[in-house]
Amino acid sequence: MTDADRLPMPLGEAMYSMRAIRRLKPDPIPDADLRTIIEAATQAPSGGNGQPWHYLLIRDPDQRAKLGALYHEAWWAKRRDAGIHGPDDIPESDRVTRSAMRLADEIGAAPVIVLLLATAHGAGAMGSVIPSVQNLLLAARALGVGGTITTLHADVDARVRALCEIPESMQIVYCLPLGYPRGRFGPLNRHPAASVTSLDRVGAATDWD
Amino acid sequence: MTDADRLPMPLGEAMYSMRAIRRLKPDPIPDADLRTIIEAATQAPSGGNGQPWHYLLIRDPDQRAKLGALYHEAWWAKRRDAGIHGPDDIPESDRVTRSAMRLADEIGAAPVIVLLLATAHGAGAMGSVIPSVQNLLLAARALGVGGTITTLHADVDARVRALCEIPESMQIVYCLPLGYPRGRFGPLNRHPAASVTSLDRVGAATDWD
Repeated sequence: MTDADRLPMPLGEAMYSMRAIRRLKPDPIPDADLRTIIEAATQAPSGGNGQPWHYLLIRDPDQRAKLGALYHEAWWAKRRDAGIHGPDDIPESDRVTRSAMRLADEIGAAPVIVLLLATAHGAGAMGSVIPSVQNLLLAARALGVGGTITTLHADVDARVRALCEIPESMQIVYCLPLGYPRGRFGPLNRHPAASVTSLDRVGAATDWD
Repeated sequence: MTDADRLPMPLGEAMYSMRAIRRLKPDPIPDADLRTIIEAATQAPSGGNGQPWHYLLIRDPDQRAKLGALYHEAWWAKRRDAGIHGPDDIPESDRVTRSAMRLADEIGAAPVIVLLLATAHGAGAMGSVIPSVQNLLLAARALGVGGTITTLHADVDARVRALCEIPESMQIVYCLPLGYPRGRFGPLNRHPAASVTSLDRVGAATDWD
């Protein structure tokens, strides 16, 4: 069986049901599936095919707990930057943020946390590794594994580097918890394509509905 | 038929054969397929589901020719920044760069050029729109359409904005020519996943082969 054969789900089904999963079961992900997910990520294109990515899989329970505590601190540091200082500042109606807040409490219990690293600094390297995240999440979806894209914060950067022995030459791009969903995949909530598309000049509508 | 049903290709087949296609036939892409491709792009995740993307489809022949000339200038400006001043500085053995150089001559003949825009400036907005590019290219692949991710250059930014009426509030992220390939899709040339993956700490190998 080739790696490609391990992902038989139709492309459309994967794309149209791959929503952010923030509530994860603690059940482990089989190593073979984790490998299929990372293999898929590495099939993405990158500038000049430079492949400036590195996938750091945090699976050891003690490492996950320590990274989880730093993630929690980073999440609240990002909120503080936005003028939010505690749960009371986040309305119950803001479900995405409430869900993200819960993830910040629980992320250490995800069976795997992927730190997506770029092997160089700067926007070019960052841009070159991000398409691979979409492959990673689509492959995970096809195997029943959920996750979401999150970021850390400058406040914790040095400590995450120390914990995970990330060299200064590398850039921490994203932090992705992975696991089996407590809820369901899809449907997604997106604006219609016609509302975000122009033809030849910005503002000139397509004739799509 | 739902949008998802229009993309029945197995996920693995799409991912493992979606390589950069830089030699394109001039044949038009049916509008329904173009729409399916953009719809798929908009299913990607983004920070806080903010969906800060805009797809500008350059299809008018005169617009394509003008953008193609600016792309050519941008491509050589990027080479100049890297100390390359003409075709003689690019060895025949550097096939990716020779192929990209040819694309810079021919891009105006691609049936569609997509300018991926972010509706805000900064690395956050840039990062939020890039996963959608991978959905776009995978959906294109599933419909037999090829393309590649390219960038422009500061030298031409103002003129591209004027040509395409791109407001200052938007950021030009990528430029993607799309069309039917003159060559074939896949196979890809990628480093093994094990060589770009660590477990718990950077440098600690997985037990993958």
